[in-house]
Amino acid sequence: MTVIDFNAFIGRLATSSGETILPFFRTSLSIDNKNSTDFDPVTEADRAAEAVMRRLIKANFPQHGIVGEEFGTEREDAEYVWVLDPIDGTKSFISGFPIWGTLIALLHRGTPVYGMMHQPYIGERFSGDSGSARYQGANNTTRKLAVRRCASLKDATLFTTSPRLMNDADRAKFQDVEKGVRLTRYGGDCYSYCMLAAGHLDLVIETELKPYDIAALIPIITGAGGVVTTWEGKPAQNGGRIVAAGDPRVHEAALKILNA
Amino acid sequence: MTVIDFNAFIGRLATSSGETILPFFRTSLSIDNKNSTDFDPVTEADRAAEAVMRRLIKANFPQHGIVGEEFGTEREDAEYVWVLDPIDGTKSFISGFPIWGTLIALLHRGTPVYGMMHQPYIGERFSGDSGSARYQGANNTTRKLAVRRCASLKDATLFTTSPRLMNDADRAKFQDVEKGVRLTRYGGDCYSYCMLAAGHLDLVIETELKPYDIAALIPIITGAGGVVTTWEGKPAQNGGRIVAAGDPRVHEAALKILNA
Repeated sequence: MTVIDFNAFIGRLATSSGETILPFFRTSLSIDNKNSTDFDPVTEADRAAEAVMRRLIKANFPQHGIVGEEFGTEREDAEYVWVLDPIDGTKSFISGFPIWGTLIALLHRGTPVYGMMHQPYIGERFSGDSGSARYQGANNTTRKLAVRRCASLKDATLFTTSPRLMNDADRAKFQDVEKGVRLTRYGGDCYSYCMLAAGHLDLVIETELKPYDIAALIPIITGAGGVVTTWEGKPAQNGGRIVAAGDPRVHEAALKILNA
Repeated sequence: MTVIDFNAFIGRLATSSGETILPFFRTSLSIDNKNSTDFDPVTEADRAAEAVMRRLIKANFPQHGIVGEEFGTEREDAEYVWVLDPIDGTKSFISGFPIWGTLIALLHRGTPVYGMMHQPYIGERFSGDSGSARYQGANNTTRKLAVRRCASLKDATLFTTSPRLMNDADRAKFQDVEKGVRLTRYGGDCYSYCMLAAGHLDLVIETELKPYDIAALIPIITGAGGVVTTWEGKPAQNGGRIVAAGDPRVHEAALKILNA
């Protein structure tokens, strides 16, 4: 088997998608279009960035499969499959908050083996290969990502994008966990999982995730020493109801409540 | 009267406070201290940054007054009074989210005449003098800040840091407004007001604000063409229950519901 430098290639994907998205973020293109029915800046940016990434992948790895939010699935039974979400956190994007990200995952025989979250406005890249994870900042400083220890739920900081995104039964379970933690915060999308990998928060619980919402984050979380599964404790790459924790003790405690 | 370049001086305050705060943000100093009762990174950063700014102000303008979150009030009846909040958005800060800010206001005879919000991690400065407002980015690009038009509540994007911070009566009024808008988002602190000034969202409603939470933001919002008052329609610089809007029509519609 040829050893391919996927790391460098994913960096190229991130650079190209970032250049494609930024003209739509916090610019006149993104303001005062509310009454136009035929122009939605975040959708335009999403599509343009996914198209750029698909073209690069096809040119370099024509045998690979691709799953994207905007343009669907091609060759999803290939040995290597790319899973793309150009803008995760569209509500942050349209409100000018720089806490959305471009998610790029590489699956090998169905398992995410490499993932990156790129925040091009700040100039941040969070990446991981399940074995390790790293942060690359605007000034090209890099450092290892590592989760923090957290002995129990009562010490944990919990994030979810919004409890309103949950159905009633799931929300009730979520609120049972919420009652036991030190601090809960809403909002964040992909950014929350990256801050978990960086050791700044302890627990993220969400529902209704698509595969492209989570696949890229799995190798980052596990590479930083964290745990991410479905609420049932199964592999997370198909999305659905997800629980991620920096410390396995917190993960176990959350699963116990979510499945009570 | 001597014309003083307050603009350049506020830039120095922002630079010095940013250099003081950043060692505490997303660093090993800020992680794994949860069980230490004698070290709270955000409080340490807050105090150190306020001390730096107070020292600069006293050295340059010994006759000016100072109101700060950490070290209280000095000469608050002076002609010029500085109002400082080194870290607005402490929960974002401790979770690694770069949407907190350093707030610096200059009051002349009680009225905020100049304000800056500085986000040193991203390298962003939002400033205003009520007549105009501007954004300065990491790469030293600057642009004018201008609110966007929004004809009615039903088209508006509404932000609040958290409805949980409100008392029951205020929360009920807030929820009446919330029912009428297009989109509500939670979280944001000072960042929301800056995104309102930049034309990315339409309405911010909060309660229980301190003077140092809002004073610096007033000249930015009004300089960008927006409106900010208390829920009673009075000047906002003393804090309390605050409503800010980009379009006066949305401000009026919100006030009507909040006072119904």
